[in-house]
Amino acid sequence: MAKKKTKNIVVIGGGTGTYTVLKGLKDHDVNLTAVVSMMDSGGSNRILRDEFGLLPTSDIRQCIVALADEDTKNDDLRKLFTYRYESGTGISGMTFGNLFMAALTDIYGSQKVAIKKTCELLHVKGEILPVTYDNSHLVARYDNGKQVLGEHFIDEPEEEIAKHKIIELELLPKASVNREVVSVINNADLIVIGPGDLFTSIICNLIVDGVVNAIKDSKAKCVYVMNLMTKYGETTDYTANDHLRTLENYLGKGTLDFCLVNSSKSFPRGIISKYKEERAKPVKNDLKNDHFKVVRRSMVGNKVYQRGKSDLVKRSLIRHDPKKLAKALLSLL
Amino acid sequence: MAKKKTKNIVVIGGGTGTYTVLKGLKDHDVNLTAVVSMMDSGGSNRILRDEFGLLPTSDIRQCIVALADEDTKNDDLRKLFTYRYESGTGISGMTFGNLFMAALTDIYGSQKVAIKKTCELLHVKGEILPVTYDNSHLVARYDNGKQVLGEHFIDEPEEEIAKHKIIELELLPKASVNREVVSVINNADLIVIGPGDLFTSIICNLIVDGVVNAIKDSKAKCVYVMNLMTKYGETTDYTANDHLRTLENYLGKGTLDFCLVNSSKSFPRGIISKYKEERAKPVKNDLKNDHFKVVRRSMVGNKVYQRGKSDLVKRSLIRHDPKKLAKALLSLL
Repeated sequence: MAKKKTKNIVVIGGGTGTYTVLKGLKDHDVNLTAVVSMMDSGGSNRILRDEFGLLPTSDIRQCIVALADEDTKNDDLRKLFTYRYESGTGISGMTFGNLFMAALTDIYGSQKVAIKKTCELLHVKGEILPVTYDNSHLVARYDNGKQVLGEHFIDEPEEEIAKHKIIELELLPKASVNREVVSVINNADLIVIGPGDLFTSIICNLIVDGVVNAIKDSKAKCVYVMNLMTKYGETTDYTANDHLRTLENYLGKGTLDFCLVNSSKSFPRGIISKYKEERAKPVKNDLKNDHFKVVRRSMVGNKVYQRGKSDLVKRSLIRHDPKKLAKALLSLL
Repeated sequence: MAKKKTKNIVVIGGGTGTYTVLKGLKDHDVNLTAVVSMMDSGGSNRILRDEFGLLPTSDIRQCIVALADEDTKNDDLRKLFTYRYESGTGISGMTFGNLFMAALTDIYGSQKVAIKKTCELLHVKGEILPVTYDNSHLVARYDNGKQVLGEHFIDEPEEEIAKHKIIELELLPKASVNREVVSVINNADLIVIGPGDLFTSIICNLIVDGVVNAIKDSKAKCVYVMNLMTKYGETTDYTANDHLRTLENYLGKGTLDFCLVNSSKSFPRGIISKYKEERAKPVKNDLKNDHFKVVRRSMVGNKVYQRGKSDLVKRSLIRHDPKKLAKALLSLL
């Protein structure tokens, strides 16, 4: 009997959504590649960009932690990579991982080499690729005509802006896809888009020149993982269908094969009212099968996440259950 | 034939002098322990002490680099541990190693555990022990009656102070020796004191309660390695004999078995005039055998060190040759 070929899965995103997908898939026999957004401008990344002149690596850092070997020997480095300083003028709020990669970049004169060396040091399973090495910022245009520059201000907009809908997301200046990304997408069996902040973690990858064409040219199946919750100021009151249509504005119609949607209504106790305070709510599933198939699975994790006091950006309080999400994704292969 | 017992060598100091001793001895079949001063208050250490509330670890960091496995697999971590940031408000001038240990201390809630974990991660050969875990500052009294608080201001004194001689060095508050240090000194075959800044790297260890008694109680041979150069403001115009007598004010007479002195007069080109600008010069050897034996060896290294532009303290430009120094020390066993 011929040996079954190990499947290639490419996960596109950044942030905690992608972390969850990687965390779940890492324990399975698949070749994993994370394609990660490089447009972050909040918290630790602002300092990296403005003071170190580097590309932001927080999304890379999260993927490294997700895919790092969980062997006890590797424990200290993994713990360090999740560590955020709470002391030191100019240091508080910085992540150890970003400072680690900044030092390696200076030593090797290349952020690309620094990322690869870091992955080696942490015995990362799979590959982590920046979607681009171009230094570029997000620009969002809202339905009142206003434009906002910078990922962080789109991720957590001012109140005057938050009331409005994003009607277009662009990169300034334009960025070109990392050639290695085209190659892994080309060889993929499954492309996983999301979950994650629709504009600031997902679409920000698709607007890099060359990414959408690579996805269209690939024979891989393509799945979008629907978010659990809406996000005020970015996807306020969006239904599942709103997410889908917005995504397809950038990805093109007919590219998706599946949309994976959570079917469980049982959220951890008190979490809905907590989200209500932030004017967010569970994404309403109003999807019907279309040119893609809607796959419904119960996938809500039962862990409630806390935000660290030195966290400089807001993070999701609940997430997909990594195991359930992985199982659902693997069933699509 | 009975197997020869591996000899135990304890090196007392801190700074580049101790680095050189460790670097030289590490390639030999000996059990090495570095006992390291914890009174540093300059550069990266000021931030550690004042902003992180931690004990200073720069001397520890240098010893870690000296004793880290030089296997290629360990290369990146070793390089990182010698790295000093040159960018970032509040970060520039900090060493990666100190930030690394600060993060581990926060994770484990103990600086002691953090140091041990760091040594494991860098595959350190031998052991590195802080002379004390008490948080204490150096106080120097000068021959004009003035007192100066803080290692950094004694190491690089203001001009008005630099003209005067240190007549007493104390700790404020008093500090007690790390119990592990007593045990390794007790089991030592050879105790190496120096080379290094006489007050701020050497005597600062001897004034920790319990250290001198441990040395006196030990059956180990005890050697003082004489500095190559005087240091303006700390040992201005000191001869070898001046160094010795000052050391013995703290160590007690009759404790030293050997004084190891450089006999070579050939210094790297241009270095003497460079030192002259800093009002320093080669230490004149006016020693005669006493209750200790004077051992003369040619030990000047031919490498000239540069100071980094983000270095916050002055470092030695020339050093002992690690191989020659180690050979001389091993001949005393």
